[in-house]
Amino acid sequence: MVLKQISEAKCFGGAQSIFEHHSERCNGAMRFSLFQPPQAVRGERRPLVTFLSGLTCTEENFTVKAGAQRVAAELGLNILAPDTSPRNQGIPGEDESYDFGSGAGFYLDATQAPWSGAYRMYSYISVELPQVLAKNFESIDLSRQGIMGHSMGGHGALTIGLRNPETYLSISAFSPIVAPSQVPWGQKAFTGYLGEDRQSWADYDATALVLSGHRSGGILIDQGDADQFLAEQLRPELFASACQTAGQELELRMQAGYDHSYYFIATFIEDHLRHHATALL
Amino acid sequence: MVLKQISEAKCFGGAQSIFEHHSERCNGAMRFSLFQPPQAVRGERRPLVTFLSGLTCTEENFTVKAGAQRVAAELGLNILAPDTSPRNQGIPGEDESYDFGSGAGFYLDATQAPWSGAYRMYSYISVELPQVLAKNFESIDLSRQGIMGHSMGGHGALTIGLRNPETYLSISAFSPIVAPSQVPWGQKAFTGYLGEDRQSWADYDATALVLSGHRSGGILIDQGDADQFLAEQLRPELFASACQTAGQELELRMQAGYDHSYYFIATFIEDHLRHHATALL
Repeated sequence: MVLKQISEAKCFGGAQSIFEHHSERCNGAMRFSLFQPPQAVRGERRPLVTFLSGLTCTEENFTVKAGAQRVAAELGLNILAPDTSPRNQGIPGEDESYDFGSGAGFYLDATQAPWSGAYRMYSYISVELPQVLAKNFESIDLSRQGIMGHSMGGHGALTIGLRNPETYLSISAFSPIVAPSQVPWGQKAFTGYLGEDRQSWADYDATALVLSGHRSGGILIDQGDADQFLAEQLRPELFASACQTAGQELELRMQAGYDHSYYFIATFIEDHLRHHATALL
Repeated sequence: MVLKQISEAKCFGGAQSIFEHHSERCNGAMRFSLFQPPQAVRGERRPLVTFLSGLTCTEENFTVKAGAQRVAAELGLNILAPDTSPRNQGIPGEDESYDFGSGAGFYLDATQAPWSGAYRMYSYISVELPQVLAKNFESIDLSRQGIMGHSMGGHGALTIGLRNPETYLSISAFSPIVAPSQVPWGQKAFTGYLGEDRQSWADYDATALVLSGHRSGGILIDQGDADQFLAEQLRPELFASACQTAGQELELRMQAGYDHSYYFIATFIEDHLRHHATALL
């Protein structure tokens, strides 16, 4: 549980850092980005919002591109941005695809060899990493957590949040993969990490989770209607329909003209942080 | 003057694009980033603020990291971020140093071979690029321009702004090189691009320009006091002293705890855009 600080910079009066630590679940060194707002720097215990990134990302993309620190500083929210997969496992094919292996952990615990020895992002995010934070940062109040994410990370936020409602009091997502069992990205990843038995997929499918009775407080989703992945990979209408059927509160906002990029995230990150603050403050 | 659009994304209701064109001054293809605020997208003629980046940067760093689009959208400012040098000239040594050649054009017109055939960023920024914009973007009002920059780009903003006060109605800078003739970065670059004759350096030295009578409206400078380059390369006190001697209005803000990074720029970009808006709107 020894943390190594890779970098630190003052930002909007808070501290923007990158740390590295040994992860048991992920079988090696993992990095995460942490923004501590000015209130936390002064020693106050403040809530934590975790942002899970999408395919090909590291802990840096959201940190550098989303402009979240301004509003996080105003609201007094710690912001955690983990990496998106284990790295450097030496597994054949690990680095060959943008949508499987490195940078594509899909926030699940793999059951299929050789991936099952390290690709355990579900329990890394929901169990191990909070323990690391608890031991190292007194200013993070883990009794007040929200979770959000983008694309594959939106899938992660929805599934981890829905399965752990006592931990994550608020959920939001940008352009999430809401029904991975029904789209190519998810089918490829789930087949590789979880095997052919589709029963095992349902635990990592937000649409299936809502239909099987999992619930959260109100969920906010923003989706650009000029997103190149909308029709084939994202399909928010499947989740909206499931939420309506199941009585899960959902605000799905279709944003005219926006694509899948961080320019879209930057535009609406303030709304998401205020959504979380409503539940956490 | 044919523009090729490399990318476009909607951002805060405006359009964030990257373009490429053939530059006569820079002897080849050059890229620039342009943010057009919602007002410009709707066809209004709006002012332009140019941001000049620092060593090693391209047109992307500021665009992706500074979070300028939010306030630019609110104020209705077009934001131009050019590249920092010519590229791919095939000059021996062009890509060997982070502080000379590619990514280090220093916003001057080189007089020394082989650099003088392409390294003409001063006239590229102040003459050629505005002509390109005039021919391609009716929504950019070139009679209302401001200029700002970071580090080497802060040097560029101060010198180009001070030498062209009829064009640039407002100037600001983050962590600028204010006296290149007196610091290692500037001495290396000026010797290579301009030769040993120090008389020729004065046209590209903001401190020397102020002392020789050049003037601008009020200048805003932000400088972090935890900046690793402060004492050796930046030395804002030299410019502050010159401004006081010469009667040039300057607001120099030393920002406690901030370093040289884009986290610093992101923190204070709103203040800088409002500084420009005061002169341009």
